[in-house]
Amino acid sequence: MAGPAVVDRAAEAAAGAARAFGESSAASRAELLEGIAAGLEAERAALVATAMAETNLPEARLQGEIDRTAYQLRAFARLVRSGRHVRAIVEHPDPDYPLGEAPDLRLMLHPVGPVAVFAASNFPFAFSVAGGDTAAALAAGCPVVLKAHPAHPELSRATAAIVHRAAAEAGAPEGVFALIEGQSEGVALVEHPAMRAAAFTGSLQGGRALFDIAARRASPIPFYGELGSVNPVFVTAEAARDRVDEIARGFVGSLALGTGQFCTKPGIVFAPAGTGFADRAAAAIDAVAPGRMLSERILEGYLERGDVFSGVAGVEVVRPGTESDGAVTPALFRTDAATFLAHSERLSEERFGPSGLVVEYDDETQLAPLASGIAASLTWTVHATAPGDGGLDTILAEGRERSGRIIFNGWPTGVTVSPAMMHGGPYPATTASLHTSVGTTAIGRFLRPVSYQGFPDELLPPELAEANPLAVPRETDLSRESR
Amino acid sequence: MAGPAVVDRAAEAAAGAARAFGESSAASRAELLEGIAAGLEAERAALVATAMAETNLPEARLQGEIDRTAYQLRAFARLVRSGRHVRAIVEHPDPDYPLGEAPDLRLMLHPVGPVAVFAASNFPFAFSVAGGDTAAALAAGCPVVLKAHPAHPELSRATAAIVHRAAAEAGAPEGVFALIEGQSEGVALVEHPAMRAAAFTGSLQGGRALFDIAARRASPIPFYGELGSVNPVFVTAEAARDRVDEIARGFVGSLALGTGQFCTKPGIVFAPAGTGFADRAAAAIDAVAPGRMLSERILEGYLERGDVFSGVAGVEVVRPGTESDGAVTPALFRTDAATFLAHSERLSEERFGPSGLVVEYDDETQLAPLASGIAASLTWTVHATAPGDGGLDTILAEGRERSGRIIFNGWPTGVTVSPAMMHGGPYPATTASLHTSVGTTAIGRFLRPVSYQGFPDELLPPELAEANPLAVPRETDLSRESR
Repeated sequence: MAGPAVVDRAAEAAAGAARAFGESSAASRAELLEGIAAGLEAERAALVATAMAETNLPEARLQGEIDRTAYQLRAFARLVRSGRHVRAIVEHPDPDYPLGEAPDLRLMLHPVGPVAVFAASNFPFAFSVAGGDTAAALAAGCPVVLKAHPAHPELSRATAAIVHRAAAEAGAPEGVFALIEGQSEGVALVEHPAMRAAAFTGSLQGGRALFDIAARRASPIPFYGELGSVNPVFVTAEAARDRVDEIARGFVGSLALGTGQFCTKPGIVFAPAGTGFADRAAAAIDAVAPGRMLSERILEGYLERGDVFSGVAGVEVVRPGTESDGAVTPALFRTDAATFLAHSERLSEERFGPSGLVVEYDDETQLAPLASGIAASLTWTVHATAPGDGGLDTILAEGRERSGRIIFNGWPTGVTVSPAMMHGGPYPATTASLHTSVGTTAIGRFLRPVSYQGFPDELLPPELAEANPLAVPRETDLSRESR
Repeated sequence: MAGPAVVDRAAEAAAGAARAFGESSAASRAELLEGIAAGLEAERAALVATAMAETNLPEARLQGEIDRTAYQLRAFARLVRSGRHVRAIVEHPDPDYPLGEAPDLRLMLHPVGPVAVFAASNFPFAFSVAGGDTAAALAAGCPVVLKAHPAHPELSRATAAIVHRAAAEAGAPEGVFALIEGQSEGVALVEHPAMRAAAFTGSLQGGRALFDIAARRASPIPFYGELGSVNPVFVTAEAARDRVDEIARGFVGSLALGTGQFCTKPGIVFAPAGTGFADRAAAAIDAVAPGRMLSERILEGYLERGDVFSGVAGVEVVRPGTESDGAVTPALFRTDAATFLAHSERLSEERFGPSGLVVEYDDETQLAPLASGIAASLTWTVHATAPGDGGLDTILAEGRERSGRIIFNGWPTGVTVSPAMMHGGPYPATTASLHTSVGTTAIGRFLRPVSYQGFPDELLPPELAEANPLAVPRETDLSRESR
């Protein structure tokens, strides 16, 4: 019973803080976010040391991840100071509305209430305790109950202490943030009636289980789950002809980055047969130094999943990948279009870690069935020379329908924190394909519209008051446009 | 097997049309919407006659509803012509991005794919075959498979014929629209793998069942259900002192409008005790002419649900409502704050039809528990004199958290079709509280973001091309702002 009581306390405290925090000024929320960013930077050395011990990640990567996390927090602070996130719309009373009287109507977004955030293993800062989901929810004005990832418990507690301190300094209400730990506690959190939304980054299996729980509640809540993604790469015949070696090396570089432990790792590449793509990729793999996985459990899962590819008749093991003292080298598999199409569901499953599959196609007519046979993904990468490349239109059309981001002559790893970023995609890439979880538009998951009809000016939120005292961007009297 | 085969055909045809329709020009989609509007107006007399025979609704109401439906279609046509709905964001390569190179990133919204729309009984035009959900989905570029409501089958078929004709004239692809009928067919539609989203207006029970089906799919889809709503009204002591009679009459007018068959019918009013509110409302009810319900089945459901209120000890029947030859007069019940709080869940359930409950409170300290005890709703109405009225702050704060639209000194019926409208709210009002189903922003349910990274200009959609040839509104280089 210890678990659920902790969850109850955290969720009830979040519910108790929700109104005051939701009504707090944008400036005070920006200060909170900036305070967390400053706290991370101030304790950088200790945090990195703890993270290195718990995650096997190298120092330079962790230093960069603190930079990114601080940047995210400050980007959300800038956003809420601008007021753009409330998407204010003002429609004055309209005498020309053809369906009778149109009253004064003003709309803005308000926080949804307490949010459950599940931290990820592979970004101990940027998708963890003070990561993007926490930043987005706090920016929106939603209290956060954070389920820590068991792969880095001490770092989670140290980061939570920074958030608590920043919250106190910014005058945020008690209960605005809490850290909980444990799998059953996470389930109880999603089930708790006080929670209004949940955000998750992790495995397909775990994410789907929590999604189902969120949907089965007496009062269902949105579950923003970023699950598995195989992130296909398509190489046109023209591109292979021009620079097959460069593309093969780039593929391996992206595949092996961070020992393959990124959501956007390219797991499958469709390359023209007879261009030597797989051999060149294998040569590149032979130059990759072994890397350690984030945890023993993740390493075990990775090694077990090697069978997914090698167990399919018609899939050749180009490089099995080695494991020595916990460090692995990348694995590479190769197959043909017919084999892929016959087993596309199994071969489209993400293998978390440095493992890739080369699917060799014979001609561009195979690209349409291949592209539509692969599972929807976060990203969709194409290497081409020009708009006229064979099959390119099909690849791009499938990518628009089956992914959230299409990369042209680049690689999917290295996700820019930008208002134009879409880190999401149709299921199974995510459980909520209308939203990104990276970049400032990720705040939209935690805001819901409320319309004010016929209000006296002094009772309107300042964002909607006639004089616009906060000078927020607003759309005004759109409905008159070109009537 | 007849049912599912029809559904399969319609869903597969929609899937087959999705890409061509999604990539069709905004202008051609606007023409389709305008063609449907013109078709409705051209066949107005015949449509109204069919609707009168099937729905018991009076001619003037149906004429007005055609006006509204045509207005909605044209409002969406204007929106897609403007290009505002794609919410284009352009971020040029950023040399000053502090986390390394920021590539060229451009984001816009694309259609989600085939949409299942469930027509409602109570708006045979505006929330039916060519109603708001259909207009929003077609405007977004999504094919629609429409499940007709059994209360007006002939009208549904006649309207579908108009949509088919307009689609052919606008050159839309085959399969862009289909009408299906039958309850099991509706279930099969939500289960069909080709469908990418569903929109529904109807009962809590039916909507929740379909929501559960949508969530249980192998590949879950968003289910935008507008379910039950009790639409509370709060009268401050000051307002009652000034104009209790006017408010009581207004309440009955809104309650009885359309024989109480609106989603936004005010079902509960919290009025100060000792002001004679219930007696004045009863007097107003005595002047209301009997009205016919939409169908025999809806009438039966309405009469059965009378027990929900009268069966609770402490609830007084002020007016039982009469039924004669299928026509009903409004029913009115009265109770006190303690009784309401003890039975708030039962008394917060919507009773679809002209039935209302007056909850008399003794002083403003009771308003907080009353307001937080009532189920979340589409609307939240307050009658007050001034910002200082007792309990007003609490009522408004609860309304922000527990409804989608707050009306000040007005009534919730009569929903304006406006970009600032929010017709939605937390569960059980809807299953997706981040979205409206009325007004042009309803298009957001059927669009998802796609990001283009490092694209050559000639391969970008025109909305994102550097020269902006369609002159769509765009946000550009936001991330530089006040860095």
